[in-house]
Amino acid sequence: MLVPEAQQIYLGNELHIARALSWVENRHPESEKLLKELQGESKVIGITGPPGAGKSTLVNALVSELNELNHRVAILAVDPSSAFNFGSLLGDRLRMQNLFMEEHVFIRSVSSRGSLGGLSAHIIEMVEVLKHAPFDYIIVETVGVGQSEVEIAGIADTTVVVTVPESGDEIQALKSGIMEIADVFVVNKSDREGSDAFVTALKRASHMKNREHETPVLKTIASENKGIKDLISSMEVHLKSSRYNQRRPIILAEKVYSILQESRMKDIHLKDIQTAVEKELNHSQDINLFRFAEKFNP
Amino acid sequence: MLVPEAQQIYLGNELHIARALSWVENRHPESEKLLKELQGESKVIGITGPPGAGKSTLVNALVSELNELNHRVAILAVDPSSAFNFGSLLGDRLRMQNLFMEEHVFIRSVSSRGSLGGLSAHIIEMVEVLKHAPFDYIIVETVGVGQSEVEIAGIADTTVVVTVPESGDEIQALKSGIMEIADVFVVNKSDREGSDAFVTALKRASHMKNREHETPVLKTIASENKGIKDLISSMEVHLKSSRYNQRRPIILAEKVYSILQESRMKDIHLKDIQTAVEKELNHSQDINLFRFAEKFNP
Repeated sequence: MLVPEAQQIYLGNELHIARALSWVENRHPESEKLLKELQGESKVIGITGPPGAGKSTLVNALVSELNELNHRVAILAVDPSSAFNFGSLLGDRLRMQNLFMEEHVFIRSVSSRGSLGGLSAHIIEMVEVLKHAPFDYIIVETVGVGQSEVEIAGIADTTVVVTVPESGDEIQALKSGIMEIADVFVVNKSDREGSDAFVTALKRASHMKNREHETPVLKTIASENKGIKDLISSMEVHLKSSRYNQRRPIILAEKVYSILQESRMKDIHLKDIQTAVEKELNHSQDINLFRFAEKFNP
Repeated sequence: MLVPEAQQIYLGNELHIARALSWVENRHPESEKLLKELQGESKVIGITGPPGAGKSTLVNALVSELNELNHRVAILAVDPSSAFNFGSLLGDRLRMQNLFMEEHVFIRSVSSRGSLGGLSAHIIEMVEVLKHAPFDYIIVETVGVGQSEVEIAGIADTTVVVTVPESGDEIQALKSGIMEIADVFVVNKSDREGSDAFVTALKRASHMKNREHETPVLKTIASENKGIKDLISSMEVHLKSSRYNQRRPIILAEKVYSILQESRMKDIHLKDIQTAVEKELNHSQDINLFRFAEKFNP
């Protein structure tokens, strides 16, 4: 039964793809066997950046352009649920609705769940399902909030960091955060004032971080489909570079690590630990965490 | 031999404290037994915020004030090593040197190592060592870069988010990031222009996030020791609040989870996985990650 399931995904049956994604997302017992059948070469494009940078519009324009080049595309839109589950930011999603109309686009939204376990295992798994299907590119889009922007670099073959022309302070903030993960920088809304100065500052800051490698900085106006062809070329250049070939085993190793972590921790639920802690706090205000942890080992 | 070691820490022997921290940091075999002897009630104050907000100056002022109130303080300064180890930002540390001169201050710098495993287990462990020693407060300071600011909320009893008066755009960025983790907001350098407007905007943004709870927003000028007494009061109020009592079991549970994760993953090294991946890529360009992962299970 499973081999046919994997084959339906391989053939691009969207109902089966959607079902497999739900299996994985909800930890359905069938998913474990299915995951071992998956194999695929499609490239994963990570798109991240601060709220308001126009990521959704850019993804929209990028997909249209890729479609025109006869590439099939799947989008996995990761909605950040904050560390404390104050809810997810779904606003941007609405603007992407017109993508559903396109022929060669498959789109799926997924919560990032603020996982405690580094790279979110369920997102890695969902990407692997999509790679098995006949898409040429899988676009994983995250809103850059803390962890998620770092995580995307662990999942994507090419990471595109989207920014907008801002003040020098913004560059300062960028420097210490998502600077390192960018394979391509996009300055979107580049018809804004100060755009050239921002591009220059960004190039300089990027050069300061790494003098051996020049990260491309591209100008786009996503709402007018401007600069999208250059973005695709830059992605393609990166995916053929020796830099990518050197980095690929690290990306794969980090995914394998996360998969192992997920499988070794699957019998432990944070909620159960919390209940046990609450009970313990009735007896004593001090808990030795290391002795306490042992209770949860078989 | 171990009980005396734990006792020396308990008595405040700084050489033993320093050695125990190194054991833990370097995964010395003795550390496992020692960790099970630790118990302590001291409160952990997390201090985070963007680069340039004046965190080190604030910590400096805070420690002086706590000392005057006869509180003993330890500082664990977490230096972010970026996800790809492009080096750590040690600049700020230099400004804190005068703290070494103070009598009741113990200071230690530690790398955050860009761990793949959620909360950095070695930082949790180092905090537990310090809690066993006779410090009243443990201050854990991180430079807010992605993951580390979220992590600190998992380690600290009270999380202080330090900001400086900035434009409205900055509030926008704050909103989606570290807004939720703050138990106390500090607007430092509050003699800057636009400070009152910033405080008002911050209060409004914070209120939007959570209408049931008013997160205090305090103004400080750390370089002139202004506002520090109020900060200490706010921390103390939070630590006595029902809000904290409700949150404490979650904080402890997350630490226990991280400890379990660390112990279950300790036989697996990312480097070994990477080597195996590199070998595998010589034979085939596609790797089924889930079958491949099984090789690393005993």
